[in-house]
Amino acid sequence: MQASAGIVYTLVTLAIVLAIVYAVYLAVWVKQQKNENKTIERIAGLIRSGANTFMRKEYAILAIFALVVGGLIFLFLPEPIWHGHGITPNLNMMLCYLAGAIFSAIAGKIGIFVASLANARCAEAATHGIKPAFLVGFRGGAVMGLIVVASCLLGVMGVMLLVGDPSMLLGFSFGASSLALFAKAGGGIFTKTADVSADLAGKVELGIPEDDPRNPAVIADNVGDNVGDVAGMGADLFDSNVASMAAAIVMAFVLDGHMTGTNVLMVFCYAALGLISSIVGIFTAKVTDNGGPTRALNNSTYVTTGVFLVLTALATLLFGFRWEIWGASAVGLLVGVIIGLTTNYFTDDNAPIVKKVAHASKSGPAFTILSGVSYGFLSVLPAMVGIAVSALVAYNLGGLIGPEYSMFGISMAAVGMLSIVGMIISNDAYGPIVDNARGLAEMGGLGEETIRVADELDSAGNTVKAVTKGFAIGAAGLTVISLLGAFMSEVNVKLEEMGRAAEKLVGFNLIDPTVFFGILVGAAIPAVFSAMLILGVDKNAQRMIAEIHRQFREIKGLAQGEPGVEPEYNKCIDIATTGALKELIPAGLVAIVATLVVGFIGGVDAIGGFLLGNIVTGLLLALFMSNAGGLWDNAKKYVESGNEGGKGSEAHKSAVIGDTVGDPFKDTAGPSINTQITVVSLVASLMATLFLRFSIF
Amino acid sequence: MQASAGIVYTLVTLAIVLAIVYAVYLAVWVKQQKNENKTIERIAGLIRSGANTFMRKEYAILAIFALVVGGLIFLFLPEPIWHGHGITPNLNMMLCYLAGAIFSAIAGKIGIFVASLANARCAEAATHGIKPAFLVGFRGGAVMGLIVVASCLLGVMGVMLLVGDPSMLLGFSFGASSLALFAKAGGGIFTKTADVSADLAGKVELGIPEDDPRNPAVIADNVGDNVGDVAGMGADLFDSNVASMAAAIVMAFVLDGHMTGTNVLMVFCYAALGLISSIVGIFTAKVTDNGGPTRALNNSTYVTTGVFLVLTALATLLFGFRWEIWGASAVGLLVGVIIGLTTNYFTDDNAPIVKKVAHASKSGPAFTILSGVSYGFLSVLPAMVGIAVSALVAYNLGGLIGPEYSMFGISMAAVGMLSIVGMIISNDAYGPIVDNARGLAEMGGLGEETIRVADELDSAGNTVKAVTKGFAIGAAGLTVISLLGAFMSEVNVKLEEMGRAAEKLVGFNLIDPTVFFGILVGAAIPAVFSAMLILGVDKNAQRMIAEIHRQFREIKGLAQGEPGVEPEYNKCIDIATTGALKELIPAGLVAIVATLVVGFIGGVDAIGGFLLGNIVTGLLLALFMSNAGGLWDNAKKYVESGNEGGKGSEAHKSAVIGDTVGDPFKDTAGPSINTQITVVSLVASLMATLFLRFSIF
Repeated sequence: MQASAGIVYTLVTLAIVLAIVYAVYLAVWVKQQKNENKTIERIAGLIRSGANTFMRKEYAILAIFALVVGGLIFLFLPEPIWHGHGITPNLNMMLCYLAGAIFSAIAGKIGIFVASLANARCAEAATHGIKPAFLVGFRGGAVMGLIVVASCLLGVMGVMLLVGDPSMLLGFSFGASSLALFAKAGGGIFTKTADVSADLAGKVELGIPEDDPRNPAVIADNVGDNVGDVAGMGADLFDSNVASMAAAIVMAFVLDGHMTGTNVLMVFCYAALGLISSIVGIFTAKVTDNGGPTRALNNSTYVTTGVFLVLTALATLLFGFRWEIWGASAVGLLVGVIIGLTTNYFTDDNAPIVKKVAHASKSGPAFTILSGVSYGFLSVLPAMVGIAVSALVAYNLGGLIGPEYSMFGISMAAVGMLSIVGMIISNDAYGPIVDNARGLAEMGGLGEETIRVADELDSAGNTVKAVTKGFAIGAAGLTVISLLGAFMSEVNVKLEEMGRAAEKLVGFNLIDPTVFFGILVGAAIPAVFSAMLILGVDKNAQRMIAEIHRQFREIKGLAQGEPGVEPEYNKCIDIATTGALKELIPAGLVAIVATLVVGFIGGVDAIGGFLLGNIVTGLLLALFMSNAGGLWDNAKKYVESGNEGGKGSEAHKSAVIGDTVGDPFKDTAGPSINTQITVVSLVASLMATLFLRFSIF
Repeated sequence: MQASAGIVYTLVTLAIVLAIVYAVYLAVWVKQQKNENKTIERIAGLIRSGANTFMRKEYAILAIFALVVGGLIFLFLPEPIWHGHGITPNLNMMLCYLAGAIFSAIAGKIGIFVASLANARCAEAATHGIKPAFLVGFRGGAVMGLIVVASCLLGVMGVMLLVGDPSMLLGFSFGASSLALFAKAGGGIFTKTADVSADLAGKVELGIPEDDPRNPAVIADNVGDNVGDVAGMGADLFDSNVASMAAAIVMAFVLDGHMTGTNVLMVFCYAALGLISSIVGIFTAKVTDNGGPTRALNNSTYVTTGVFLVLTALATLLFGFRWEIWGASAVGLLVGVIIGLTTNYFTDDNAPIVKKVAHASKSGPAFTILSGVSYGFLSVLPAMVGIAVSALVAYNLGGLIGPEYSMFGISMAAVGMLSIVGMIISNDAYGPIVDNARGLAEMGGLGEETIRVADELDSAGNTVKAVTKGFAIGAAGLTVISLLGAFMSEVNVKLEEMGRAAEKLVGFNLIDPTVFFGILVGAAIPAVFSAMLILGVDKNAQRMIAEIHRQFREIKGLAQGEPGVEPEYNKCIDIATTGALKELIPAGLVAIVATLVVGFIGGVDAIGGFLLGNIVTGLLLALFMSNAGGLWDNAKKYVESGNEGGKGSEAHKSAVIGDTVGDPFKDTAGPSINTQITVVSLVASLMATLFLRFSIF
C-alpha cells in the first residue's frame, strides 16, 4: 500500500486526539487525588501565585519582543517587502512566527498548571507510600508530555496544511525557539538564583534543613522549580521537537517537491507513531515491588523505544517507506539511548565517578571542583562520538538510496532520537513535581517517613534527568546538523531565484578563511552566552542572600522558629523575578545579533562556518555543564546519605559548594545552549536571502 | 637588490652568533652577582638538586619514548620502508625527529641551568632594591630567551641545509613538539601538585606563610617552578616557534619550488630579524624611577615589536620581498599585541574584572568559582575574534598577489606573531626566577623589605605572563591553521605521486559527515586531554597533602618551628616526581592515538575535520583556562593586599580556593593544549600517506 496523504494525516489527527483525551483523563485523575492538608494547600497556593506572577511579567516582556520581531519579519522576510513579491509571503511568515511563539508560551503555561495541580497531591500521596505518590507525580508530568507533543504535531501540521511551504515551518520553529530561548534563560536564572541562595544562606550558613519554612527563599526556590524546570523545559523540548520536524520536512520537501510526497508523509507518520509509543510507555509506568521509581521511569522509556521501533517498522512495511531511512531513525534512537546510558555513568550515584568526586571533597572544595570539572570534560567524549557516529551512519544509510537522501537520513536520525519526546517530557516534568512535593512534605510537617518517600522519588528524578538530557542534547546536535543542510539548500534555492545559479554552494570549505572566521566567532558564542547567564544568577543570588541575611537579622523570632513568625517570602520572589527579567533578554540577543553581524560581514560562507563553530562548542559546553552539574548534585546527595563523613562533615561542606557551582551549570546555562544553537540555525536559514544580497564580503 | 641565499643565511648566522654571544655575556654577568648568604645557598642547592633529579628521571622516560617513536618513524615515514624508496628518506626523517627531540630537551635543560643560576642572586640583589634585583631576574630569563630562539633558528636552518626537504622539517618539528608535550604535561603536573599542596596544607590549614621553611612541600613547590614553568615553557615555546617556521617554509616551498626562493628566504630573514629585535628589546629593559617592573617588561616588548616592524620593512624594501606578506606578518604581530592587552583586561588586578571576582568571593567560594568561570568564558571572545580577523586579513593580503599566496599569508602572520618570541621567553622565564627568589628571600630570612621587593617583582611576572600567554595561544592558533593548509598540500602531493591526482583535495567540506565525524571527535580531545592532566594533579596533590599532614603529626617540633627541626623535603619531591612521571605519558598518548584512529577510520577527510575541531575547542579551552586561572590568582593577591577584608577574611578563604582551582587550569592544562594541538597537526601531516593508503572509509 502506498502511503497517502489522507491516511497519514488521519493517523496524525488520531494520535493528537488520543494524546489529548488521555492527557485530560490523567489530569482529571490527578485532580481527584486527595488534597486535604491545609498547611500544604496554603503553601502550594503561595508557590502557584509566585509562579503565575513571574510568568505573567515574563510573558509581558516576551510579547513585546515577539511583536517587534514579528514586525521586522513582516518587513524583511522571506524577502524585503518592497521587493515586489506582494505582502502575502511576509504576512504568512509573520503569522507563522507568532503562532510558534504562542504555542511555545502555551506549552509553558500548561507546565505550570500541571505542576501546581500535582505537587501538593503528590506530597499527600507520599503519606501512603511510594507507589501512589509515584503515580501522582508521573501522571502529572505525563499530562504535560502528551499535550506538548500533541500541540507540536498540531502546529506543524497546521502550518503545512494552511500554508504548504516548508520555509514557513522554519518561521514557526523560529517563533517557538526564540521564545523558548528567553523562557529558558529567564526561568533558569530565576530558579537557580532562588536555589543557590536558599541553599547557601539556609543550609550552609544557618544550618537549617533544605525546605525549612523559616528560610525566606524557600517559596522562591519552589516557584523556581516550576518556572525554570517545568515551564522552561516544556518550551525547550517543544522547540527541539518542532525544529527536528521542520528540518526533516524541509529536506523531505526538497526530495518530493510537494507536500504529499512519500518522504514528507514519512516524517509525519513517524512523529505520530512516536506520540502513540509514548502513550503506551506512559500507560505502563508504575513502581512495582521489584524496583524503585528510577527503574519504573527507565522501563517505561525502554517500552516506548521498543514500541516505536516496532510500529515504525510496520508502517514502513505497510506504506512502502524506505527501510534505509527507518534504519537511520532507529540508529538515532539507539544512539540516544547509548548517550543517555554513558551520561548516566558519569552522574549516577551508584557508579564510581560520583563516589570519586565525593571522596575528593574530603580534601577541600577545590578538589570537588577540579575533579568535577575533569570528569565533566571526560563525559563529553562518548556523547560527541555517539552523535558523530550516528550522523555518519545515518548519512550513509540515506546515501544508499541516492546522494540526495544523505542529509534526509541525518534529519530522520534526529526525528528518531526525538520520537519518544513525549516520554522524555513526562520524565522531565516528573522531576520538579516530586521536588516540590518533597518541599511541601517538609514544610507541611508530614513526618520523616513521608519525606523519605519524597526523597526517593526526587532522587529518581535527578538520575533520569541525566538520561533525558543526553537525549535532548544529542537530538539538538543532529537537528542542527540537518538545519545546516537546510540552510545550504535554502541558500541554493535563493541563488537560483536570483539568477546566480553559478554561485551555488556545494558545501563550506573549512580552510576558506571566511568560513574559518565564522567558525571561530561561532565557537565563542556559546561560551559568552553561558557566561552571561551564569553571571546573571551570580549577581542575582548575591542580592537575594543579602535579603535573607537582612530578614534573619530584622524579623524577631524567625531564626528560633517561633510560632506565627513568618519570613517575607514575597521579597525573595520579587528579587528573583526582577533579576531574571533584567538578565533574560541580553544573553539571547547576543547570539542573534552575532549571527546577523557575521552574516552581513562574511555572507553565507561565514554563516556556514558560524553555525558549525556554534554547534561544536555548544555541544561541548552543554554536555560538560549538564554532566558536571549533575555529578556535583549527586556527589552532594551521596555524602548526605552518610558517606565520606556524612552531613556536616568537611566533605559535605565541599560537596555543597560543588553543587552550588553546578546548579547554574546544569539548570541555567547547560540546557539553554541547546535552544541557543537552534535559534541561531533558524535565524541563519531565514536570513539566507538577506545575507546573499547585502553582505560586505 | 634581490635576496640571495648567501646574504640571508649570513644574516641568520649573524643573528644566531650575536644572540649566543650576548646570552653568554648576560650569563657571566649574572654569575658575577653576589651570592653569599649560606642559608640561601643551601636551599637553592636543594631546589637545584630536586629539579635535576626530576629532569633526569623524566628525560630517561622520554628518551625511551623518543627512541620507540624514532624506530616507528624509520619503519613507516615518510613511506613504509618496504615500499622501495630506499632507506635514506626514512633514516633522514628519523634523524630529524630525534634532532628535534634533542633540541627541545636542551632548551629545557638550559632553562633549569639559568633559573638555578639566577634565583639566589636575584634574592640577594633584592636586598639592595628593586632595580638591581629586576636586572638579575630579567637577564637570567633573557639568557634562556636568546638561546632558545637561536637554537630554533640553528635547527631549522640545519635541517634545511643538510636535507633540503621541507617535509623533513615537519619531522624535526614533530620531534620538538612531541617532547614538549610530555615535558609540559609532566612539569605541569609536578609544579601544580606541589603548589596546590603547599598552599592548601600550609597557608590554609596550618596558617603559615607561603614559603615557610617548616612546610615540607615548600622545596618541591620551588622545584616545580623550575621544571614546570621554566623547563616546560622553554620546550613549549621552542616547539611553537619551530612549528610556525616549519609551516611557513612548507608553504613557501610550494610557491618557490626550491630552497633558495624569495619566499623561503623571506621566512628565514624575518625570523632572524625577530631575534635581532629581541636582542635590542632585552638590551633596553630596566626599571626606571618612573615605572615599576611591569612597565619595564611591557616597554621592552613594545620596543621589540617596533624594531621588528622597522627592520622587516627595511628588509622588504631592500630585498624586494612582497609588501603584502610584510603586511600579513605585521597584522599577526599587532593582533598578538591586541590579544595580549585584552587578556590583560581580564586578569590584571588594576582592571575591574579581578575586583569583581574578589568582591564575589565575599559571598563564598561558589561565587568565586562561578564568576571566574563566567569571566573566563567571556575572555575567549576577543582572542577568538582577533585570531579569526588576523587569519582573514592575512589570507586576503596574501591573496592580493595570487590565490596561491593566501595560505602563505596566514603562516607569515603566525611567524609575525612569534617573531618577538625571544622577548616573550625572556619575560616568561623571568616569572619563575623571581618567584623562586621570593621564596628564597623568605626562607633565608632576608627581612620584610626584601620580601616586599621580591613580591613586587613577582606580581609583575604574573601580569606579564597573561600578555605573553595571549601571544603564545594566538600564534598557536594561526600556526595550526597553516599546518592544516600544510596537511592539505601534503595530501595533494602524495595523491599526485600515487597517480590519484583526480582525488586531489580542494578543501574539507564541513557538511560532509566524514569531515563532520572528525570535527566532533577532534573537538572532544582537548577536553579529554585537559581532564586527564587535571585529574593527575588532583590525585597527586591528595597524596602529597596526606604526606604533609603526616610530617606535621610525626616530626616533633616541626609545627612550632623549633631550631634544627626540618621537614623531610625529599619525600614531597619524590611524590611529585613519581606522580608526574606516571601521569605524563597517557594524556599525550590519547591525543596522538585518537589522531591515528580517526585517520585510519575516516581517512584524510576525517582528519581535516579532526584538526579543525581540535583547533577550535583547543583554543577555546586554552584561553578559558589560562585566563580564568590568571584571574583567580590575581583576585587572591588583590584580597591579600588588604581588600574585601584582606588576609584571613571569608573573601580570602574563597579566593584561595579559586586560586587552587585555577592553578592546574593555567599552569598545567591550559598551556599544554597549545602543544597538544601542534602535535596532532604534525602527526596528521606526517601520516598523510598512510591515511591515504590504509583508511577504512
